[in-house]
Amino acid sequence: MDLDYDAATIRRLDKDHVFHSWSAQAQISPLPIAGAEGSWFWDADGKRYLDFSSQLVNVNIGHQHPAIVAAIQEQAGRLTTLAPGFANDVRAEAARLIAEVAPGDLDQVFFTNGGAEANENAIRMARLHTGRHKVLAAYRSYHGATAGAIALTGDPRRWASEPGLPGVVRYWGPYLYRSAFHATTEAEECERALSHLRDLVAVEGPQTIAAIILETVVGTNGILVPPEGYLAGVRALCDEFGIVLVADEVMAGFARCGEWFAVDRWGVTPDLITFAKGVNSGYVPLGGVVISAEIAATFADRPFPGGLTYSGHPLACASAVASINVMRDEKVVENARRLGDEVLGPELRALAERHPSVGEVRGLGAFWALELVRDRATREPLVPFNAAGPAAAPMGELAAACKAEGLWPFVHFNRTHVVPPCTISDDEARAGIAILDRALDIADRYYTGA
Amino acid sequence: MDLDYDAATIRRLDKDHVFHSWSAQAQISPLPIAGAEGSWFWDADGKRYLDFSSQLVNVNIGHQHPAIVAAIQEQAGRLTTLAPGFANDVRAEAARLIAEVAPGDLDQVFFTNGGAEANENAIRMARLHTGRHKVLAAYRSYHGATAGAIALTGDPRRWASEPGLPGVVRYWGPYLYRSAFHATTEAEECERALSHLRDLVAVEGPQTIAAIILETVVGTNGILVPPEGYLAGVRALCDEFGIVLVADEVMAGFARCGEWFAVDRWGVTPDLITFAKGVNSGYVPLGGVVISAEIAATFADRPFPGGLTYSGHPLACASAVASINVMRDEKVVENARRLGDEVLGPELRALAERHPSVGEVRGLGAFWALELVRDRATREPLVPFNAAGPAAAPMGELAAACKAEGLWPFVHFNRTHVVPPCTISDDEARAGIAILDRALDIADRYYTGA
Repeated sequence: MDLDYDAATIRRLDKDHVFHSWSAQAQISPLPIAGAEGSWFWDADGKRYLDFSSQLVNVNIGHQHPAIVAAIQEQAGRLTTLAPGFANDVRAEAARLIAEVAPGDLDQVFFTNGGAEANENAIRMARLHTGRHKVLAAYRSYHGATAGAIALTGDPRRWASEPGLPGVVRYWGPYLYRSAFHATTEAEECERALSHLRDLVAVEGPQTIAAIILETVVGTNGILVPPEGYLAGVRALCDEFGIVLVADEVMAGFARCGEWFAVDRWGVTPDLITFAKGVNSGYVPLGGVVISAEIAATFADRPFPGGLTYSGHPLACASAVASINVMRDEKVVENARRLGDEVLGPELRALAERHPSVGEVRGLGAFWALELVRDRATREPLVPFNAAGPAAAPMGELAAACKAEGLWPFVHFNRTHVVPPCTISDDEARAGIAILDRALDIADRYYTGA
Repeated sequence: MDLDYDAATIRRLDKDHVFHSWSAQAQISPLPIAGAEGSWFWDADGKRYLDFSSQLVNVNIGHQHPAIVAAIQEQAGRLTTLAPGFANDVRAEAARLIAEVAPGDLDQVFFTNGGAEANENAIRMARLHTGRHKVLAAYRSYHGATAGAIALTGDPRRWASEPGLPGVVRYWGPYLYRSAFHATTEAEECERALSHLRDLVAVEGPQTIAAIILETVVGTNGILVPPEGYLAGVRALCDEFGIVLVADEVMAGFARCGEWFAVDRWGVTPDLITFAKGVNSGYVPLGGVVISAEIAATFADRPFPGGLTYSGHPLACASAVASINVMRDEKVVENARRLGDEVLGPELRALAERHPSVGEVRGLGAFWALELVRDRATREPLVPFNAAGPAAAPMGELAAACKAEGLWPFVHFNRTHVVPPCTISDDEARAGIAILDRALDIADRYYTGA
């Protein structure tokens, strides 16, 4: 399609006709993007950006991987769309491959168009499987923006959609840097977070609780890596009371954490895993739920009461098949792990030594956060929780400084996340961090601590 | 991707790994589909089927239209995915084209992955725009399966997901053949349905009602064409009380009713239109909301609190651009209208003359239903409401007879819908109806009336 629109035309048409997510429409000026390759994308004027956000943490394989592009092109010529009631080679193969990389007996896949629908359907399965109604979900979480998924969400994005789906009870997860439990070590945080969750199950009534949902590693709300023993503890609690454990790996899965699924790092098998993003890097909209044998059996002779027109979409499934095969052939999972251990972790920790505003560095694989503060002793965040407008200016200035030098950062609240494609080269990662290093001088100017 | 799986292998992998929508997994045996073209698809053994269901009423343009396939292939090589915060040529062009074919000042487009998310976000917009909470939704409707969309849904698919999103109040829409209002003419049904809706608004409290949502022409629940004056009456009621009118055109839009949007047939402009399916025939998952200037203005300086990773997906938008251009160039909208007026309408009415079990024929464009009964006088349906298992056998036998002859029907409750691609040729349509004619002999066997 040769539209031949220049940057000004794209900006005008966008302003006139495109309504953007999570935005005050008159206050944004979306940058026109013309193309992308590997760890880079470029705007309609030809300016190139190193993508330290992987768009919305989805292009795990990098932009425009030729093998996946070719698979989409080939499948487009074969069969683009097919109703969910049929069987099909790429639909079956995508499900087979996902089951193969999923832990335990999670061998059945329900396909959706994205992560929100995946979480919606996981909760539906858990409720019908247990015959119970309540779902325990964490503060500082994001699970999507449809009515069920936003009700599960623990961050401010849910506020405008309340009251949402009934039956969600919220708990605090482990986050030592800002502990809800006054803990001082990871072990103590783990023990107290589990104790809090057990108390909550007791007072809510275990026989009323269908599921506990968590992001295996919390994503947008801070790259919160669970302490050793936490996931195993939640698993044991679920087993004790017959509660379904739902691991939301929409952001954490498919190489992002240096594992196929992040739960693999701790050897824990949930009952349901939800995925999207990295499964095919979002080249075609796709998400889904990987289902344990026990839960699948619940729907052997009883209809599962959920569905969607594009469940198991052939074009999307073909891109997932190609992506999983590329991840295997090119050792993308292993590369993300090595990148975290040898490049991102050490380099980002070195930034913290040079910049007082860096209060904490945490992460794994290609999934890192720098938590920026005004004071390391009080841990006062660089900008307030959920800041907008002038109050958020310091983070805006930091982002602008990165973009001026050709680095596209991921910024949320008082944090910048370092979440490049899992295929980024060491040199590219170091070049991006060098830009971030200079930009952090801006954050340091707001530092008021000793 | 050369998987080279035979039919038996596809069936086995599907059984082992694919969890299907709306199904008892052990009781289905999904047919492996290998390819499709125009109004036809074929299974892995080479058997061909004339697609009288357009998959799930989505391939309005027919299967594998070469211009749309080419657009997908070309865009795949340019840019597959892009975060929603950016501008982009095909994203802007898709929105521009949709705004162009939408009525009135509905000029802004919020893109989603499908219809459920579109309805979720339309309700979110209506609530925030009005500052009110309740939504009036119809019995005998389907709006999707996420928690908000399924709460809006008026058919049995919502039962397993209740209690859903709070604030939904249900009304009865016009349906003369099974009138909720004891009406005997279309005019009377219209007047009484509007009177019922006005009474409901009064007793619920107009200042508590954010939106009235309706399928412009009710789809899966029976192809219920609104009587002359109904939509205008609902529009007037909404205007009187400051209520947002949401037209769900996920199934009815983009040529299905012989119009770009079905509301065009009655010259009514809603405040929000939701779409999916026909916008690109589902070649890539895509849906969205078309937004009036007044509602868009609400979110000019106030952030819209909703979003999704794949909003405005370039690959999906490129396929929509190509599809809308093809619909214009090949006069698909006009063809659907002519097809309804000159072929499907007359031929299906002729079936009713030959088969006593056909209680009513209704529809327009490429969107028709035959309502099957055991008795024309009592209008007892051929199978009971929401029948499953042995009670549904007559409809199962009818479907099997069609399939045996190479016609893939759309069957729901006691109805078979005739919803082929809007590009079907007259000869193909007549050939399909000839098969249906023979299959209806089976329905006639269950006829018990005079």
